[in-house]
Amino acid sequence: MQRNLEAMHSRMQRLGVALRPHLKTAKSADIARLVTQGQAGGVTVSTLAEAEYFHASGFKDILYAVGILPAKLDRVDALAKSGADIKLVSDSLDTVKAIAERSPDSALPFKILIEVDSGEGRAGVLADDPVFLEMARVINDASNMKLMGVMTHAGHSYGCETVDAIKDVAAQERERITSAAERLRENDLPCPIVSAGSTPTAVHAENLDGVTEMRPGVFVFNDLKQLAVGSCAREDLALSVLASVIGQNKHKGHLILDSGALALSKDISAHDEHPEVGYGEVCHADTLEPFEGLYVGAVSQEHGIVPVDNPDAFDRLPVGTQVRILPNHACITAAGYSHYEVLENGRITAQWDRVNGW
Amino acid sequence: MQRNLEAMHSRMQRLGVALRPHLKTAKSADIARLVTQGQAGGVTVSTLAEAEYFHASGFKDILYAVGILPAKLDRVDALAKSGADIKLVSDSLDTVKAIAERSPDSALPFKILIEVDSGEGRAGVLADDPVFLEMARVINDASNMKLMGVMTHAGHSYGCETVDAIKDVAAQERERITSAAERLRENDLPCPIVSAGSTPTAVHAENLDGVTEMRPGVFVFNDLKQLAVGSCAREDLALSVLASVIGQNKHKGHLILDSGALALSKDISAHDEHPEVGYGEVCHADTLEPFEGLYVGAVSQEHGIVPVDNPDAFDRLPVGTQVRILPNHACITAAGYSHYEVLENGRITAQWDRVNGW
Repeated sequence: MQRNLEAMHSRMQRLGVALRPHLKTAKSADIARLVTQGQAGGVTVSTLAEAEYFHASGFKDILYAVGILPAKLDRVDALAKSGADIKLVSDSLDTVKAIAERSPDSALPFKILIEVDSGEGRAGVLADDPVFLEMARVINDASNMKLMGVMTHAGHSYGCETVDAIKDVAAQERERITSAAERLRENDLPCPIVSAGSTPTAVHAENLDGVTEMRPGVFVFNDLKQLAVGSCAREDLALSVLASVIGQNKHKGHLILDSGALALSKDISAHDEHPEVGYGEVCHADTLEPFEGLYVGAVSQEHGIVPVDNPDAFDRLPVGTQVRILPNHACITAAGYSHYEVLENGRITAQWDRVNGW
Repeated sequence: MQRNLEAMHSRMQRLGVALRPHLKTAKSADIARLVTQGQAGGVTVSTLAEAEYFHASGFKDILYAVGILPAKLDRVDALAKSGADIKLVSDSLDTVKAIAERSPDSALPFKILIEVDSGEGRAGVLADDPVFLEMARVINDASNMKLMGVMTHAGHSYGCETVDAIKDVAAQERERITSAAERLRENDLPCPIVSAGSTPTAVHAENLDGVTEMRPGVFVFNDLKQLAVGSCAREDLALSVLASVIGQNKHKGHLILDSGALALSKDISAHDEHPEVGYGEVCHADTLEPFEGLYVGAVSQEHGIVPVDNPDAFDRLPVGTQVRILPNHACITAAGYSHYEVLENGRITAQWDRVNGW
């Protein structure tokens, strides 16, 4: 994990952009302190619960990167009043109009970035849609809002099959978000922040001119999905689930682990590239070397089923054996836990807590 | 929910078996008190964290229904010493041999049920496998174990396509577990408990002679999977996720909700029967009537994407609209939450906490 953080810092420095790490992956103040070490400290969150937790843990500059709703502004306002420099995003003209009409009892103007679709097609307006400029003007004209710029998330980088394809998505992400920024400036609208990023595009972008900050998240841990799309190497996988063999079903030909849907999640996102990883790869607990051909093929709530083709596996993994499971998607798997056990040189040296919920 | 509890009580009474509800679904002491109202109070759990939490909440007779490991016995022993009547399951000869060799520092013998495979093929030994009797003798002969009987879980009832098919699985479950019990008794081995059950088999079993207790779990809430297999009616769905429309992506043709993979889970188990429900059905927040044709088609961590075929949906569900999502699998969805908001006659009347983790 420490290597992953350092590599991302170096890359962002080399490309001349700030790293505003997305803390939705780790949701841990201990990890947030490591990932922001030696830099300004702006962070990204995916829930207001994260914003409140990280602010209470000493983080001030927080971008809440999921579209805001007027109904959620009381919590934002409370954070701002207690000293947080919280930034919001929206892709909705209706939302910013509703905020503009809100009674002005908040201490500070709400700081808004307009979310732009850079090709993912999830959230975000298109910068050439008239709605984009209209939103910008509503925000800029309102006394209770401040236009902070534009943001995007090139989530379609997760669907890439080659590093060249990721580089293309990264170039598209940069082009779309800097065009959006340019459109604001051409219209005499402010755009101090030009925010982009996903782990694959942050790892493979060759040019980030015009982008002011990147928001990768899962790079902290990486996972089988990131390995499959080419964002990391196997030795960069920093999160695993410790499990035990609790049964050997010889009449059906499988091992039973005490890690099921809640311990691993039901995320199978690495299946696009590698269906053979199932719900996770089964590895030696100490070395993280994979047991050749062993993966969690099915899960129920607390059971993980590992199909056994070669009966040798029953000898190699007797009941009681501890194994480590590498998950498909670290963000989703980690969300099942209240804390991390920190493994350093083969020993657990600390527990780091997490914030869950909303 | 209250109706679901009462219906299951009546069924179990009519069939002459005790209800030992599986609390892994709700993981809530408040709900456990309602579900055990007016009966002996034996319960089932899926983790030692649940066992500890429910014991601390006043429950004494607890069956931990996931295969035990010797490494976990210290926690079991601590529970027993503090007054819990905790029962364990195993399908592993190696495990019971290892327990027999454990130094006898525990206050009480470990109470063990042998897990039998009644056709699911997940965990459990076959009752006609010589290992079954050998396990029973090891347990019965050991001074630190007590043979309490047999248990099974007919999880293959979830794969049924008709009620008749569920009735067949229920008959098979009963036949297999009572045969296993008979085999113990024929060999002068004790078998006071004959434990079976899943929600579909508990709802549709016509005869439970010889079974002493049933352990359904998800019947408390039900979900789209149980609806699909025929274990419940639509009006029995008692768990939903309250979400808001946070965006309207008109250029891609979808609504964006603030409920994604963490709020709903990535469980899509109702897809076997109904792929059109996606990650959950979108319903009116007040009435739970479905919005015709609207479902969560894709999720990322905090975003739910609702495809819109008929643009009327953009008018009917403006940004800010609250909706309720009916999940595929209540046990997995509920696990993302620290508590429940209790809805009674359209008003939130209480918060009920949950235990998560292990």
